[in-house]
Amino acid sequence: MSLSQSTAGRPAEANVDLMREIDAAIDPLLLGAVASLDGRAPLLAGMARYHLGFVGPDLLPIDPATVDRGKRIRPAVAMLAAGTCGGDPFVAAPLAAAIELLHNFTLIHDDIQDDSRTRRHRPTVWSLWGIEQAINAGDALFAAAHLPFAALRADGVPAELVLRLLEAFDRMTIVIVEGQTLDLGFELRTDVSPAEYLEMIAAKTSAIVRYAAWAGALLGGATDDSAARWAEFGLALGIGFQIRDDLLGIWGASHETGKAPADDIRRRKQSLPILLLRERLGAIEREEIARLYAAPAVDSAGVARVLDLLAREDVRAAVEIEIGQHHDRARAALLAAASPEANPYRDQLEALVERLATRLG
Amino acid sequence: MSLSQSTAGRPAEANVDLMREIDAAIDPLLLGAVASLDGRAPLLAGMARYHLGFVGPDLLPIDPATVDRGKRIRPAVAMLAAGTCGGDPFVAAPLAAAIELLHNFTLIHDDIQDDSRTRRHRPTVWSLWGIEQAINAGDALFAAAHLPFAALRADGVPAELVLRLLEAFDRMTIVIVEGQTLDLGFELRTDVSPAEYLEMIAAKTSAIVRYAAWAGALLGGATDDSAARWAEFGLALGIGFQIRDDLLGIWGASHETGKAPADDIRRRKQSLPILLLRERLGAIEREEIARLYAAPAVDSAGVARVLDLLAREDVRAAVEIEIGQHHDRARAALLAAASPEANPYRDQLEALVERLATRLG
Repeated sequence: MSLSQSTAGRPAEANVDLMREIDAAIDPLLLGAVASLDGRAPLLAGMARYHLGFVGPDLLPIDPATVDRGKRIRPAVAMLAAGTCGGDPFVAAPLAAAIELLHNFTLIHDDIQDDSRTRRHRPTVWSLWGIEQAINAGDALFAAAHLPFAALRADGVPAELVLRLLEAFDRMTIVIVEGQTLDLGFELRTDVSPAEYLEMIAAKTSAIVRYAAWAGALLGGATDDSAARWAEFGLALGIGFQIRDDLLGIWGASHETGKAPADDIRRRKQSLPILLLRERLGAIEREEIARLYAAPAVDSAGVARVLDLLAREDVRAAVEIEIGQHHDRARAALLAAASPEANPYRDQLEALVERLATRLG
Repeated sequence: MSLSQSTAGRPAEANVDLMREIDAAIDPLLLGAVASLDGRAPLLAGMARYHLGFVGPDLLPIDPATVDRGKRIRPAVAMLAAGTCGGDPFVAAPLAAAIELLHNFTLIHDDIQDDSRTRRHRPTVWSLWGIEQAINAGDALFAAAHLPFAALRADGVPAELVLRLLEAFDRMTIVIVEGQTLDLGFELRTDVSPAEYLEMIAAKTSAIVRYAAWAGALLGGATDDSAARWAEFGLALGIGFQIRDDLLGIWGASHETGKAPADDIRRRKQSLPILLLRERLGAIEREEIARLYAAPAVDSAGVARVLDLLAREDVRAAVEIEIGQHHDRARAALLAAASPEANPYRDQLEALVERLATRLG
C-alpha cells in the first residue's frame, strides 16, 4: 500500500515513481541473470550487459542516466497486473525480469535479421561484435531468461504454478518467433493485407504483453477465467502499442522518437499505414509505390510522394481510429478483469494505457 | 526387463535394437514438440522438421531409411542412465527428447556461425532458407526443447524435480553457448593451447552429455551424490567423443565419416591434433603452419604437408592416448556411479562407451 499512499493525488509523478520502483526492483534480477553468463567466455556476459545498457562497447560500466534501457512496459504490465489482482506486485518481479530478458534476446536477433545498426541510440551487438557472436549473445540471454523462475519458487510460489508459467513462457516465445518468421516473409511480398499484418504483430509484438498481463495476474491470485481477460487486455494493449509505433515511424517528431522523420518510409517498412494506403490506391499509383519500394531505400522525393499520398487518402485518421479501437478493447478488458474495489495498481495501469494511447515518442 | 531378456547374449544386435527402441520412443516426442511450431508460419515448423530429418527441402515427408538423423547418443545416455539407476528408461524419454531438440537447435545456429553448407549429407537450414530464417528455426527449436518437461510432470515426476531439471537445462545451455563463443574466438588466434581447447570442448560438446547422464540418473532415482558421479561420466564420455571426432576429421576414412579425407585440415579447424602439432614444432615450422592456415582454405599440397608433419611428430598416437584417458575416466565414473548388481542398461551403456572409444565414423 505504500505505493498508493505515496502517490495519491499526484498521478503524473506517481507514474514516474512507480516506473522507477519497477526499474529498481528488476535491475538486480536482470544483473543476476546476466551474471550466470560470467565464466569461461567474458565476451558473452559482456555483450548481454552491453545490450541491456549496463556497460559500454569497452565493457566498462556506464552511468545509467546516460543510457536508454527501453521503456520497460512489459515488466510494468506484469507487476501491475499482479498488484491489481490483490497480490504484492514485487512478488512478480522475477517474472517481470524474465519477460524483459526474453524481450531483449529477441531484439538482439531481430537487429541481425533486420540489418539494424542502431538500437536505442547505440550500435547494435552484431554491428560491434559480428553476426556470429551476436547469435550467441541472443541464445545465452534466452537461456538466462528462464532462470528468474527459480526465484519465484524460492519466494514461495507453488511449483505447479511456476511450471505452468514456464511452459506458457516458451509457448509464447514460439508465437513471437512465428511472428518474426511472417514479418521476414512479408519483406518479399507487395500484397500483404492489413489483416495479415495485424495477425503478424499480434504474434511478434503483442504475445509478450499478453503473457505479461496473464502471468502477472495469475501470480497476483487471479482465477483462470480472470487471467483469460487479462490476456485479452495485454493483447489489445500490445497491438495498439505497435500500431502507434507504426504511426510515429511515419509522422512522429524526430526530437520525440529519436529517428529521422518518416524513417519507416525511407526504410520501406511494410507497416499498417502503407498497407492501408495500398488498399486505397488504384492500380497505377499502386504500381508507383511498388517501384519506389523496389529500391534498397526510398529517396527523399519518394518519401515526399508517399507522404502526399498518405495525406490525400487520409490514412493517418484511419490509423488513429484503429489504435483507438485496440485501446478501447484494452480498457474494456481491464474493466472486466479487475475487481470493482479501488486499487492503486489498477489506477497506474489505466494511466499507462492512456499514456501509451497518446504517446508522441 | 523385456529389453534385457530380448537382448541377452547378442550384444552387437542388442545395441542396434536398443538404439531403435530409443529412436522409436523419442521420435513421437520430437514430432510432438515440433507440432507446437505449427500455426501462423508454416515455414517455421517446416525448417525444424527438415533439420530433424522428417521432411525434405520441399517440406514433404521423406523415408526415414534414406536420411541420417544423427547418432542420438545424448538421448541414449539419458535413458540408459535412468535405467541403470533402477528406473524405467522410457520414463526419461521426454528428457531425452528435450536434449535432442536442444542439440539440434545448437546445430542450426552453429551451421550459420561456421558457414557450413552441409550437415548429415544434406544442405543446412540457412543454406536453403537464408540466415535470417535459420536464426528463427534455431530460436523456435530451443523454445520447443523446453516443452517435453511438461510431459515429465504429466507422467508423475514430482514438480520440484522437473523444475530442478529445467533450471539445470538452461544453465547447461549457457555453458554450451560459452563454449561456442570461445570456439569462434579461437578462429582469430594462432596460439590456442591444448588446455584451452579442452576447456572449450568440455563446454561446447560435453556439457550436454554431462547433463544427459546427470538428469537421466536423477529421473532413475539416483541420489545427488550418485548423480554427481554420473555427471563426471557424461563429461568424460563427451570429451572423449569430441576428440575422437577431431581424430576422424583428419585420419578418418571417407566412406566411414561421410567427409573428404583430412577435411578438418582443409577447413583449417583448430582441433586438438593441430594444437598438439604446433606445440611440438620449432618456430620455423610453426610459422609455416600459420602461413598455410592464413588462406581461406588449405590447398592439397598444404594438406599433404600438414599430414606429413603430424606423422613425423607422432601426433595421432598422442591423440589416441588422450582419448583413451577420457574413456578410462568415463568407465571409472560409471563403475562408481552404478550399483554392483547386474543391470542390462549398464551393460548397454558400457557397450556404448566401447563403441564410441573405437568408432571409425
